[in-house]
Amino acid sequence: MTSFLPDSIEKVIDEFSRLPGIGPKSAQRLAMHLLHSPEMRVDALASAVAGMKKGLRFCEKCFNISNGELCNFCADPLRQQELICVVEDILDVIALERTGQFKGLYHVLHGVLSPVDGIGPEQIKAGDLKSRIEEMLSGGVTAASMEIIVATNPSLEGETTALYLTKLLKPLGVRVTRIGRGLPAGGDLDYADEVTLTRALQGRLEYI
Amino acid sequence: MTSFLPDSIEKVIDEFSRLPGIGPKSAQRLAMHLLHSPEMRVDALASAVAGMKKGLRFCEKCFNISNGELCNFCADPLRQQELICVVEDILDVIALERTGQFKGLYHVLHGVLSPVDGIGPEQIKAGDLKSRIEEMLSGGVTAASMEIIVATNPSLEGETTALYLTKLLKPLGVRVTRIGRGLPAGGDLDYADEVTLTRALQGRLEYI
Repeated sequence: MTSFLPDSIEKVIDEFSRLPGIGPKSAQRLAMHLLHSPEMRVDALASAVAGMKKGLRFCEKCFNISNGELCNFCADPLRQQELICVVEDILDVIALERTGQFKGLYHVLHGVLSPVDGIGPEQIKAGDLKSRIEEMLSGGVTAASMEIIVATNPSLEGETTALYLTKLLKPLGVRVTRIGRGLPAGGDLDYADEVTLTRALQGRLEYI
Repeated sequence: MTSFLPDSIEKVIDEFSRLPGIGPKSAQRLAMHLLHSPEMRVDALASAVAGMKKGLRFCEKCFNISNGELCNFCADPLRQQELICVVEDILDVIALERTGQFKGLYHVLHGVLSPVDGIGPEQIKAGDLKSRIEEMLSGGVTAASMEIIVATNPSLEGETTALYLTKLLKPLGVRVTRIGRGLPAGGDLDYADEVTLTRALQGRLEYI
């Protein structure tokens, strides 16, 4: 089919197909949409993509997106310095911030362990987390006062990563916790899968 | 949520969300993917989009994509000149060419009638089709030798457009046909909806 379309359109289809969740058919449809869009919109998309990474930095401490050396959270002395929430991605930081319930700091792994995709501990910011904690401990923070909340997704990869981090950080003497798993708000018990229900039972809390 | 992300990423998310079939969540995911992609891939996408419309022309006769004044089909004297297949989009031309069964010419409407979206006869290449046929008739082609196959999609808009075209072209004396509708290959009769089945009955052919 490809030989019927001009090269410039083929290129767009090809680039779109490389994006996650976009198959060849969707890529074709997107290219056709752009073809019928005003030049202005096409240029806006192109320049937005081209300029995305310009001037973008990551926080030296937690690897969140940042404007300077430190991100807004790490630079804020009012946040609890001994409480670190470990997340997979920048979007997770945003999701947690929206709750308004977390007052500690973050650590963005930028990925999860996934041997199938060739992602090992070196590809994510796991070692950086360890040295960050070690630095804090040698800087006078007591291990007993620290808590590391592992908030990776409750997926196979997320759980594997959580286990790996626990093994990595436990020897430092800090408290390592896993974010609560169970029934989501508004969820239906008889529609929940076995894994979710098992975890909901294991994660039960006593009324006080 | 938007206030937590840098402007450059917001822009990409915003532009992606404007594309059909991409919601705000998918747009976020795509932006995150690009953020973790090598600079090279991001630039490739940006320049592919930016360069897509450069040097792109439409055939003066059938409005298919073209390298010169006429597209490959219209410039080919071996194609049946009196047989014109009317399609919605360029992708439909490709789909029909893949069958290898059609040896006539095309006419690309670049859309279908859709009052809801504000698309009337002036927004599609319907008038151009009429004048194209009129020109052929005044050029010596007899109306009886011509056939216009309306191959718009069997959707509400496609059928409306097909009806409109029939009314537009019938007065010229040419034969106007509609592409066959019925059960798709590999389809299951008891899974077919009523409209499809009705059309399949209406479109039945006698064994010869």
